[in-house]
Amino acid sequence: MPIRACIFDVFGSLVDWRGSVARHVAGVAARKGVTLDAIAVATDWRAEYQPGMARVRDGARGYVPLEVLHLENFDRVLDQHGLSGAFDATDRITLNQAWERLDPWADVPEGLAMVRAQRLVAPCSNGSIAMMTRLARHGGLVWDAIVGADIARDYKPKPEVYHASARALGLAPSEVMMIAAHNDDLAAARDAGLSTGFFPRPTEHGPDQSTDLTAEQDWDVVAHDLKDLAQRLTDRT
Amino acid sequence: MPIRACIFDVFGSLVDWRGSVARHVAGVAARKGVTLDAIAVATDWRAEYQPGMARVRDGARGYVPLEVLHLENFDRVLDQHGLSGAFDATDRITLNQAWERLDPWADVPEGLAMVRAQRLVAPCSNGSIAMMTRLARHGGLVWDAIVGADIARDYKPKPEVYHASARALGLAPSEVMMIAAHNDDLAAARDAGLSTGFFPRPTEHGPDQSTDLTAEQDWDVVAHDLKDLAQRLTDRT
Repeated sequence: MPIRACIFDVFGSLVDWRGSVARHVAGVAARKGVTLDAIAVATDWRAEYQPGMARVRDGARGYVPLEVLHLENFDRVLDQHGLSGAFDATDRITLNQAWERLDPWADVPEGLAMVRAQRLVAPCSNGSIAMMTRLARHGGLVWDAIVGADIARDYKPKPEVYHASARALGLAPSEVMMIAAHNDDLAAARDAGLSTGFFPRPTEHGPDQSTDLTAEQDWDVVAHDLKDLAQRLTDRT
Repeated sequence: MPIRACIFDVFGSLVDWRGSVARHVAGVAARKGVTLDAIAVATDWRAEYQPGMARVRDGARGYVPLEVLHLENFDRVLDQHGLSGAFDATDRITLNQAWERLDPWADVPEGLAMVRAQRLVAPCSNGSIAMMTRLARHGGLVWDAIVGADIARDYKPKPEVYHASARALGLAPSEVMMIAAHNDDLAAARDAGLSTGFFPRPTEHGPDQSTDLTAEQDWDVVAHDLKDLAQRLTDRT
């Protein structure tokens, strides 16, 4: 089957959440006169990501969009850092907007436009439509549609998220390529019948990253970044 | 409340379904050597639009995307025109793609870009995400997101479609303006708490159109076309 649409993991794969969240948190903290380790706050906030979604995935809790989980998780992170009294409810909402202001990796704006010149493109993120809309504006990215968690009302790597995303685009799973810098996301997409494309983001988790440095399966396309992946896609139907 | 997003009716308001469907049908018919009145086919096809959605709205049938209703409705139209034997299943799928290839009215590409320079923009159509994605590519339109029937899994003018669309954008209804050339769509949007913008499309239904020639309520913005509306929005918060 020809690939008619490419759908993308966003956090880590297209945008630098670690550096961007840390910068946003550091900026708000400085304005409030609060001293903190912004990189540690960003890393610890991200560490709450999977546990927060797990309760939705396993049915213990109905679907809520990721910004709701992020805001809840942030309370725990502040507590861990002894900062529970440092930010009021309004500050916390402002801090939570960090996740809508993540900078794309340098190759992404041009690489995404190169893919869009050949195929439909859409984020397939655990972030909501609202988050993806604002992230795209922040980073100057242009999407044809937004699919992912909000469409499926569940979180990756549940197969329904990949299936609902293909269905929303009017395509069979095999006509859709999932593109990510995370081997587990691609493994789930492949199990759901999608095509797969990988490139590494070796500093997503900082200078000592030890995971996702290379392709762990024979993904349909393996590239060194998004521009390289776009070029390799050009040579396929 | 400032207006942070403009959401748009599409069929009739942004694109010329009547002329475009007729052209697509005439082209396929000519290739198949079938003689038909393409404008009458387009008009009769559109006449099946509300009855098809009514069964979903009143709960007699679960949500199915509009392309499914269109394909079912087309069988009835062909029957009305004595053309039941003229097109096989593959032809009918090709003909159904007419609804993904509707030409924008002349003011729309520039007018939409003018609105997008100020606010988030998204279609709020009864068409599906798949249809809106392909229509945007066909017409060279750029959206920030796609909301509407597929998000709500119900059809306008049910209030949930407007509410779910605002919610998907992370906004209160009053922060969203519904823009349409149809007074009934705007009346439902206003009842749902949205702001409203109107311009007429006096030839949507052909040269003898008698409905929706003027604003029937004091909509928040009344303009003569989308570029004019974009200009009037510039003067508001």
